[in-house]
Amino acid sequence: MSVLVVGSVALDNVRTPYGEVKESLGGSCCYASVAASYFAPTAIVGVVGGDFPKRHLALLDRHGIDRQGLQVEKGGRTFRWTGYYEYEMSQAHTLNTELNVFADFRPEIPEALRRSEFLLLGNIDPDLQMEVLRQMKRPKLVLIDTMNFWIGGKREALLRVMKQCDVALLNDAEARQLCDTPSLHKAAKRLLQLGLKRVVIKKGENGCLVVSASDVFTAPAYLLEVIRDPTGAGDTFAGGFIGYLAGAKRLDDATFRKAVVVGTAMASFTVQDFSLKRLDRLEMPEIQERCARVRAQAEIPAVRLTARRKPVLG
Amino acid sequence: MSVLVVGSVALDNVRTPYGEVKESLGGSCCYASVAASYFAPTAIVGVVGGDFPKRHLALLDRHGIDRQGLQVEKGGRTFRWTGYYEYEMSQAHTLNTELNVFADFRPEIPEALRRSEFLLLGNIDPDLQMEVLRQMKRPKLVLIDTMNFWIGGKREALLRVMKQCDVALLNDAEARQLCDTPSLHKAAKRLLQLGLKRVVIKKGENGCLVVSASDVFTAPAYLLEVIRDPTGAGDTFAGGFIGYLAGAKRLDDATFRKAVVVGTAMASFTVQDFSLKRLDRLEMPEIQERCARVRAQAEIPAVRLTARRKPVLG
Repeated sequence: MSVLVVGSVALDNVRTPYGEVKESLGGSCCYASVAASYFAPTAIVGVVGGDFPKRHLALLDRHGIDRQGLQVEKGGRTFRWTGYYEYEMSQAHTLNTELNVFADFRPEIPEALRRSEFLLLGNIDPDLQMEVLRQMKRPKLVLIDTMNFWIGGKREALLRVMKQCDVALLNDAEARQLCDTPSLHKAAKRLLQLGLKRVVIKKGENGCLVVSASDVFTAPAYLLEVIRDPTGAGDTFAGGFIGYLAGAKRLDDATFRKAVVVGTAMASFTVQDFSLKRLDRLEMPEIQERCARVRAQAEIPAVRLTARRKPVLG
Repeated sequence: MSVLVVGSVALDNVRTPYGEVKESLGGSCCYASVAASYFAPTAIVGVVGGDFPKRHLALLDRHGIDRQGLQVEKGGRTFRWTGYYEYEMSQAHTLNTELNVFADFRPEIPEALRRSEFLLLGNIDPDLQMEVLRQMKRPKLVLIDTMNFWIGGKREALLRVMKQCDVALLNDAEARQLCDTPSLHKAAKRLLQLGLKRVVIKKGENGCLVVSASDVFTAPAYLLEVIRDPTGAGDTFAGGFIGYLAGAKRLDDATFRKAVVVGTAMASFTVQDFSLKRLDRLEMPEIQERCARVRAQAEIPAVRLTARRKPVLG
């Protein structure tokens, strides 16, 4: 079945201790769609300006990504983000955000894409996420991503759209903020009460916590000694996750666990190089091998205990 | 084989959002030895004052813990710790520490205990840890615990004693501080270069990372909705871990993974009540079941991927 990704398309200027890139391909739409495209037919809805480089369009084409929903504002400039990461790579520092054509983005889903079965609502204004949902024709699964900016500024609208979704994707700080509790387990349970079927709480290098009514799953992150550029890790995770689900035969707890591992594996490739460089040239055997490594890293042998009679003392 | 635990014996005054206890049994020696006693014969070396309550000695006796190495300073007062935890339970706030007889503690290992095969060097002055090691007769495995206080103040002495140990136990902040890197994976590798065979980095609710020359293992914490009192979780983990190893037939990577799960399970019981209340009355079937739950929570089904031919576009 097919995946539709709605989100940002950006030109990124990123500096990390391992180097620097300028005007490189970025944005949630690009990371997520390329990741998903390895597992299912994938389309995007987003917006770019007339300055958007042809080489970036060529990259999307190379992955067979349907871009009929990518609006091109000829007279406008593409969304740009400039930031850096220091020694401690878990925190992005923003130097400059130019929304440009993204500021007036109104997602329009082309008729042919309205029947996409798997929808990834990338991190945009919750009101726009709701407009996307209204245009869709009964998607089988809706995955919603968000960020602290909307939790703080548009909480009610965000909760309204979340109620219409199946799976929510948040990081740990966002889950705590949205649910007003330090316990991630409690936060997840509260989100399930909203009507969500599953909650995925991302914890960076600590993996993620996935909770449904019938399952609690703690997944590891894949351990890498060198992370060159963390940009896009979360979006890649989301794309790999929904792409795997769209290609799967069923949607039970075990399938979701596997989808988390596929998302984790895909994200681990993204952070090994800048922009989409690594994601652009993956082969299925190496994805398969990375998934096996994630699994091996977390594997627990069965523990069998026998009662021991303690001596009576004193 | 038998376990010897060297560390603190304390009277704790603890307040959490779930209640309060006064003069309750605490200290690394007590949590660790009671946890270990479920799996192997266990002895302690520590010090208390003449004021140490008989009911606490009775608890140790109930678990068959050999306390010939517990020095009783008749005229002195027992080590006391007063602290509290707030809503966010991951951080202990100390109100008062009275070292009392613990200030002049010089561990003396009784002759009969010097041949203990498994030694847990609890968090005490690294010079004292070294003195303990000197008194031992070729232990099979030495597990060393420490804290930020010694990493900052006695770094060289700590590194010296670590070189003589097999397994080091640190939390994430301590590992970063000791190895001067934000990457826990790198920190673990640097500690292995010291001569340690295995490093266990505890990450609280995010489980732990265990690294040896041949294995990288990410273990989850057991998810609890309610944590009543986190005091002693790390020491209980250490005790369950070394106790399981002492009772095991071999010491390969798989056995260490199981020992981590047993430590995790035991710690999850400790935090469900104050002091050693829960740890005092465990039955083997519930420990076995908790281990199975930890395992189920982290279990990853095998992922099988098939290459997808992407359409040629553009």
